[in-house]
Amino acid sequence: MSDTDSPRRRTRGGGGAARRAERTAVSVETAKYIERNIPNFEVLTEEALQIIEANAETVLAEIGVNFVDNPYALDLWREAGAEIDGERVRIPRGLARELCKTAPSTITQHARNPERSVEIGGKNLVIAPVYGPPFVRDAEGGRRYATMADFNKFVKLGYMSKWLHHSGGTVCEPTDVPVNKRHLDMLYAHMSLSDKPFMGSVTEPSRAQDSVDMCEILFGGLDGRTVMTSLININSPMTFDSIMMGALEVYARANQACIISPFIVGGAMAPVSVAGTLTQVLAEVLAGVAYSQLVRKGAPVIMGAFVTSIDMNSGAPTFGTPEASHITYGAGQLARRLGLPYRSAGSFCGSKLPDAQAAYETANSLNMGLLSGVNFMLHGCGWLEGGLVSSFEKFVMDADQLGALHHFAKGVSIDENAQAMGALREVGPGGHFLGCEHTQNNFKTAFWRSDLFDYKPFETWADEGERDTVALATARVEKQLNDYQQPHLDPAIDEALRAYVREKKDSMQDSFI
Amino acid sequence: MSDTDSPRRRTRGGGGAARRAERTAVSVETAKYIERNIPNFEVLTEEALQIIEANAETVLAEIGVNFVDNPYALDLWREAGAEIDGERVRIPRGLARELCKTAPSTITQHARNPERSVEIGGKNLVIAPVYGPPFVRDAEGGRRYATMADFNKFVKLGYMSKWLHHSGGTVCEPTDVPVNKRHLDMLYAHMSLSDKPFMGSVTEPSRAQDSVDMCEILFGGLDGRTVMTSLININSPMTFDSIMMGALEVYARANQACIISPFIVGGAMAPVSVAGTLTQVLAEVLAGVAYSQLVRKGAPVIMGAFVTSIDMNSGAPTFGTPEASHITYGAGQLARRLGLPYRSAGSFCGSKLPDAQAAYETANSLNMGLLSGVNFMLHGCGWLEGGLVSSFEKFVMDADQLGALHHFAKGVSIDENAQAMGALREVGPGGHFLGCEHTQNNFKTAFWRSDLFDYKPFETWADEGERDTVALATARVEKQLNDYQQPHLDPAIDEALRAYVREKKDSMQDSFI
Repeated sequence: MSDTDSPRRRTRGGGGAARRAERTAVSVETAKYIERNIPNFEVLTEEALQIIEANAETVLAEIGVNFVDNPYALDLWREAGAEIDGERVRIPRGLARELCKTAPSTITQHARNPERSVEIGGKNLVIAPVYGPPFVRDAEGGRRYATMADFNKFVKLGYMSKWLHHSGGTVCEPTDVPVNKRHLDMLYAHMSLSDKPFMGSVTEPSRAQDSVDMCEILFGGLDGRTVMTSLININSPMTFDSIMMGALEVYARANQACIISPFIVGGAMAPVSVAGTLTQVLAEVLAGVAYSQLVRKGAPVIMGAFVTSIDMNSGAPTFGTPEASHITYGAGQLARRLGLPYRSAGSFCGSKLPDAQAAYETANSLNMGLLSGVNFMLHGCGWLEGGLVSSFEKFVMDADQLGALHHFAKGVSIDENAQAMGALREVGPGGHFLGCEHTQNNFKTAFWRSDLFDYKPFETWADEGERDTVALATARVEKQLNDYQQPHLDPAIDEALRAYVREKKDSMQDSFI
Repeated sequence: MSDTDSPRRRTRGGGGAARRAERTAVSVETAKYIERNIPNFEVLTEEALQIIEANAETVLAEIGVNFVDNPYALDLWREAGAEIDGERVRIPRGLARELCKTAPSTITQHARNPERSVEIGGKNLVIAPVYGPPFVRDAEGGRRYATMADFNKFVKLGYMSKWLHHSGGTVCEPTDVPVNKRHLDMLYAHMSLSDKPFMGSVTEPSRAQDSVDMCEILFGGLDGRTVMTSLININSPMTFDSIMMGALEVYARANQACIISPFIVGGAMAPVSVAGTLTQVLAEVLAGVAYSQLVRKGAPVIMGAFVTSIDMNSGAPTFGTPEASHITYGAGQLARRLGLPYRSAGSFCGSKLPDAQAAYETANSLNMGLLSGVNFMLHGCGWLEGGLVSSFEKFVMDADQLGALHHFAKGVSIDENAQAMGALREVGPGGHFLGCEHTQNNFKTAFWRSDLFDYKPFETWADEGERDTVALATARVEKQLNDYQQPHLDPAIDEALRAYVREKKDSMQDSFI
């Protein structure tokens, strides 16, 4: 069981009611997911889209994809009309796209706090934190293997982050818990320390089933509701392994959402060109999404595209690059033509530190995520060092920047108040607008304001120790963790979840695979 | 006279031919200005554009603009049909837009090296460095008043920066030279230390004339060629002062290009709303550009928009914010409908240090500059602390990022090689693309690569001292200044320029206004 001190805090005796009431005053406002009132940026022409779509059908029909160690999948594909050759599945032109049509275009993912349920699809953007790093970094402790204590801290930070709509999944890998047990602790953390929506386990079909079972407890029965969005990576190029597909099968049958996502470093797992990579991405997604619909028609799925470029000198993946942007924009166009929700982008960077390189790369990626029409942004904050590290400071830095995306997405109001003709007449040439009535009436909501960045006069900033962004972020992490209060969870449900975790753990030997 | 050691180097005697030849091998490649093969991002609807355009005409006709201390301008406006009331000029609906029609839609600015001449307008983007800061900062010396020695260093860095097309103007204010003489040193630095195009002085009409006179020497007569692009700020709201207008008059008569640019911190110099600010920007630009055409029909001008938001807590200008982006995108649409080249965006940030805040804010602004259709980007690198500081490290950091803009702007190739169907067939499911023929043929040019950022393995990076972006940038500044070699300038021209500067300086008392 993960160590979460908050349940103990709640049962602690002795006149703490007033103190608790005071603590309750801490705001844990969460913004509604982004509903864009802006157009998408489209980098591909109609001609380019048609060529890529035709080529993807050629890939499926003539090259095919592999479903590895999965006779069940091969049977489904054979019945659907694909040509099976060993583990190779060749899909006649048009079949995969036809099968994709039963996937819903929008997914409602319920949170245990109904105010925090999200709609994934359409013009919406739902943002979740970083996923998967085995290491964590903070200014004080440097880089080290992640533990369950780190995991809990990230879930708390996610809960406290106004612009984050989703608690995510493996916000870091808790390497101090055996691999076959850690999903239980991670799920319990998301369920108990936050009330935002979250992701399920995908590292084994049985762990996906544990995720569904724990959700049954948390939600008091699911009744067909979608309450998880989980990450199913394709083993690019064009390979669907049985572990990920097994998890997908569990989730599809339970009506739980999956992101079906190529995982591509261009030049290694896909061609070195943008058009070639997009062709492969589309072929892989078509095959994966079609398979989800063979498992169960109507299963909720998201078209994923985790695609970045490679540094041909070092072989390292690179982030925030122009070619990654081309692919992200192009894949968004392909997703919309397929009628599927789209997952891409995030707080991507290759830098080892949350420094200027990290911020340039991340801002490039976040901006393209917004403008490319992404509906679900995993890795929306906290990603460092090519995904090897979850950074505490970068988590709050990125999470703050997400506010700018919310405000940009509102678009430009043109109503009479926004036209401000009265202000222009009132002030006139040579005047100033600071004191005019229009400014007084609108200044509080007119401009987005960072909760983190330094806007102080130079002298004040110098007097306060010339703090850089990392220093400001360290202070913000500490404050958010101090201010954190666990959202209420029915004690009976909490105990049932704990019992489930305890019994599952007791039934297994520790395993590190 | 500024201290530039290179002329002395060239006249140094003694068998240095081989050494000079070796030094000449240092690459000072400059990329061609960006020719976009991507669409523009448009945030305003047709309806919103029409409302803003109609409101701007109302501002001009009913509120009017002030031309201060400038009876000449008032005469021109009266003759053109405007209503004059003291210094207030009210322009009948449609008149200013009609007058703007004689301004060219594209401007060729000649450089003394013809390979570095630029076309400003259409789908092009020409990038120039930071302009105006009284302070400089570097990692070693911290923040201090700028000197002519700093200025020369920035011009050299600009010359060495591959992705920078333009040498700019006041890359920092050389505070150690009297105000009435410093333009001479600055011009001589751009003319002798670089061969890229540059900007003229605008702080006095006579200094604009000096700029024209020195260009006559440098280019051996101008013959109507445009060889400077200079920055004419409007004193927002809606005020045109006689100093800036006097410089504009000099340049318009000499067929030299001017950026006619509102300078707005929203909420102070314009309404606190985006639509209201855009209305004012358009009204000001219409009046300013129309005036340039009254001075001389066909005078080359650029529609400027330096607009940012304000932090209503501290009163500080803020940068890289969503509202600044809305305005920049919207002003681009208005400029295209006017048929004028467009200047906006830059390496804007409010941070005191070249840290993550600076990079997030800057990346937001650079990306929107590219996607908003900006044709001339002043402040493209080196801006720090709200424009108070030119930063050496940030100069090379930003200049490196400009490479990403170049590559993104190329758009997506869809030719047969880019489609990569051969590679997809060759590699197939489960393979990898690193060694395939298509990758071998294309990897060198496929992906943009930073010349600054860290892409090394973690262990190598750790062994080399865990350098952050600032440390890498400090080293790059030093290397670029060491590698710098002055481009050849005809000694007779050089001497004539030096004589002009010497004589002008000798004719004046020092003045600090």
